[in-house]
Amino acid sequence: MLSAERIMQRCDALARHSELPGGLTRVFLSRENRAANELVLGWMREAGMQASVDAIGNVVGRYEGQQQPCLMLGSHLDTVRDAGRYDGMLGVVSAIECVAALHERRKRLPFAIEVVGFGDEEGVRFATTMLGSRAIAGALDPAVLKTTDAAGVSIEEALRAFGLDPAGMRDVARKKGSVAAYAELHIEQGPVLEAEGLPVGVVTAINGFSRLRVTLQGEAGHAGTVPMNLRRDALAAAAECVLAIERIARADVDLVGTVGRIEARPGAINVIPGEVQFTIDFRAPRDELRMQAVGSARAEVEAIAEKRHVGCRIEMLQELGVAACAPWLMSQLARAVAAEGFPVRKLPSGAGHDGMALKNIADIAMLFVRCKGGISHNPAESITEADAAVGARTLLRFIENFELPA
Amino acid sequence: MLSAERIMQRCDALARHSELPGGLTRVFLSRENRAANELVLGWMREAGMQASVDAIGNVVGRYEGQQQPCLMLGSHLDTVRDAGRYDGMLGVVSAIECVAALHERRKRLPFAIEVVGFGDEEGVRFATTMLGSRAIAGALDPAVLKTTDAAGVSIEEALRAFGLDPAGMRDVARKKGSVAAYAELHIEQGPVLEAEGLPVGVVTAINGFSRLRVTLQGEAGHAGTVPMNLRRDALAAAAECVLAIERIARADVDLVGTVGRIEARPGAINVIPGEVQFTIDFRAPRDELRMQAVGSARAEVEAIAEKRHVGCRIEMLQELGVAACAPWLMSQLARAVAAEGFPVRKLPSGAGHDGMALKNIADIAMLFVRCKGGISHNPAESITEADAAVGARTLLRFIENFELPA
Repeated sequence: MLSAERIMQRCDALARHSELPGGLTRVFLSRENRAANELVLGWMREAGMQASVDAIGNVVGRYEGQQQPCLMLGSHLDTVRDAGRYDGMLGVVSAIECVAALHERRKRLPFAIEVVGFGDEEGVRFATTMLGSRAIAGALDPAVLKTTDAAGVSIEEALRAFGLDPAGMRDVARKKGSVAAYAELHIEQGPVLEAEGLPVGVVTAINGFSRLRVTLQGEAGHAGTVPMNLRRDALAAAAECVLAIERIARADVDLVGTVGRIEARPGAINVIPGEVQFTIDFRAPRDELRMQAVGSARAEVEAIAEKRHVGCRIEMLQELGVAACAPWLMSQLARAVAAEGFPVRKLPSGAGHDGMALKNIADIAMLFVRCKGGISHNPAESITEADAAVGARTLLRFIENFELPA
Repeated sequence: MLSAERIMQRCDALARHSELPGGLTRVFLSRENRAANELVLGWMREAGMQASVDAIGNVVGRYEGQQQPCLMLGSHLDTVRDAGRYDGMLGVVSAIECVAALHERRKRLPFAIEVVGFGDEEGVRFATTMLGSRAIAGALDPAVLKTTDAAGVSIEEALRAFGLDPAGMRDVARKKGSVAAYAELHIEQGPVLEAEGLPVGVVTAINGFSRLRVTLQGEAGHAGTVPMNLRRDALAAAAECVLAIERIARADVDLVGTVGRIEARPGAINVIPGEVQFTIDFRAPRDELRMQAVGSARAEVEAIAEKRHVGCRIEMLQELGVAACAPWLMSQLARAVAAEGFPVRKLPSGAGHDGMALKNIADIAMLFVRCKGGISHNPAESITEADAAVGARTLLRFIENFELPA
């Protein structure tokens, strides 16, 4: 029997493993990551799965079926800083709950089920996202393992310190054909389902994203002695850029643009900032719309820098195109939603998800669960137990009726 | 004999005590502060002074004269982050050099000379400035000692860890009348002397300053899912504030305004900033001009916050009015400049200095030494040995001819 109560309790249990006292922050390959993995491994084994941690730090459980290939389910176990407790975790815990229900009935399906708790999706620690799913999709350039965190530790070093062997990465990548499909349950992180009074929705596509880093080089100076007209203040220049990016993103209802990080150096109350670094994140359901926004932002940042006699470097950190969900999977998910007695609402995903990477080896699908106020990446993230129950029942129905296309 | 070469070498020697590899950062009560103090104590003793570190961490050397009270000379030994090597240190080293010249000739004056190397003027570590001179001036509220640094260490705890007894603070404060005058040699940190081809200038007044901290409280959210029109982005609001402050400061040629620190939380590339904190520093040679600027900034920040539905808290961190130099001291300094063969250029100080605090117990004067390009609070800070020589000669002449007003 599916237990939504247990799903909620397990999300709570995972949330207790946090580096942020009184809140939730759990980054890739941290002590808290290890503790969360241990919990998940235990739940997977309880649900009748063979479970282990792979060489990139994903927790992988397999419930054998009558034949290869597998239906892959899952989501991520890492969080943003000061996060909510459902983003990622709900998908992992719900998938385990579905397998547990099958195991309880000793039911085997014509295909294996794998549940993956991805070690890194958010990219908080190494500023590069989806390390876990990119590795499984065979889309992780080994050079990426040299990327360092704020303390100068590379992914490779962090993997070793975690007890993993980076050389094992080769075996993490799945062959095309070995994964029949990837399906992920996730909270919506947006307001659509709540506005329409629906507990679940079927995702049509995951918006593409572009992430950039801008460095503005002005001149540091004494806050009391340099006249305003002689300043080359990197923070004043950055402020104009932040507003330009907001203006660009506001120009199209489908577009969003965010400056999430900013750092001004030297960062003293009585010193004019000489250097500022900030990030830009653009997302859109159409790749050309996003490309246009990136182009406009580049041009505006460069014009602002030129006007203010400030140096400017713009780096593209990561870019991923729109990832469409497979129609054959969407219709199987839609049947499951309808069978649960709900209207089928199809909607795009504004947030990025591991499916973007897994698309490289398999067709993908996503089931969204309503969340309160559309709030996510925030401690106020909230869902109801009743919605968790609908989500898990819909996912289990989808699994039990899963068919490869003719 | 005064040695400008030795002055330059000693500034270099102090600059080697830095927490910033390849640059200069030396904050109050740090390991590097201790090493710098040791150097200065040695030089003071070599110059015939009784020298020790007082309970707030100032290095104080006394060269006895025929009578009380003393003429106090000095400047500070702490630096901003990524600083130049003359801001503060030149004044301490030059004053010691003057005493050494008197000592060499076994010359005693009718008054004692004290040279003080203030432990904290910049306020980098505890975000509150002039701790050293405020203590000597009896103007340091003991409650200030509870102020903590970024690591949560209070000034009181840091003093103890440095081997000092905060209870000794009482004895640091000088009685009115015990200090006949305070005179400080300092680099100009501005472009006036260079533009006029002069090595030194006589300061008329130190500009007043107001320092504020603004906290904007918006709502954190997912960078991919929250539509632009539903956002309460604290960083976009802060960007408008930064530009408003710049605009206010640009409106009057005598006014400067700086946002030197900014922090956006949670500070992830894919999260809308929910909270931003930044500082404001306004300075002006007229108190009412500065007050007006603070009032305008408050009003603009509040209006921006209201328009963007963002919470806003504005705190006044520190405020000091214009500190005028004493005409009787200015004319004695001017005579020394003229006797060295230079036109007497009088100019205000845009930067704050320890004299602002010492004004509480004594009349003050300052001698500015030209610096290259007016650049300070920057590793490119630079002076010539020839100008250091003029500065020291002028200061020594001032000391030898020093007379209390009739």
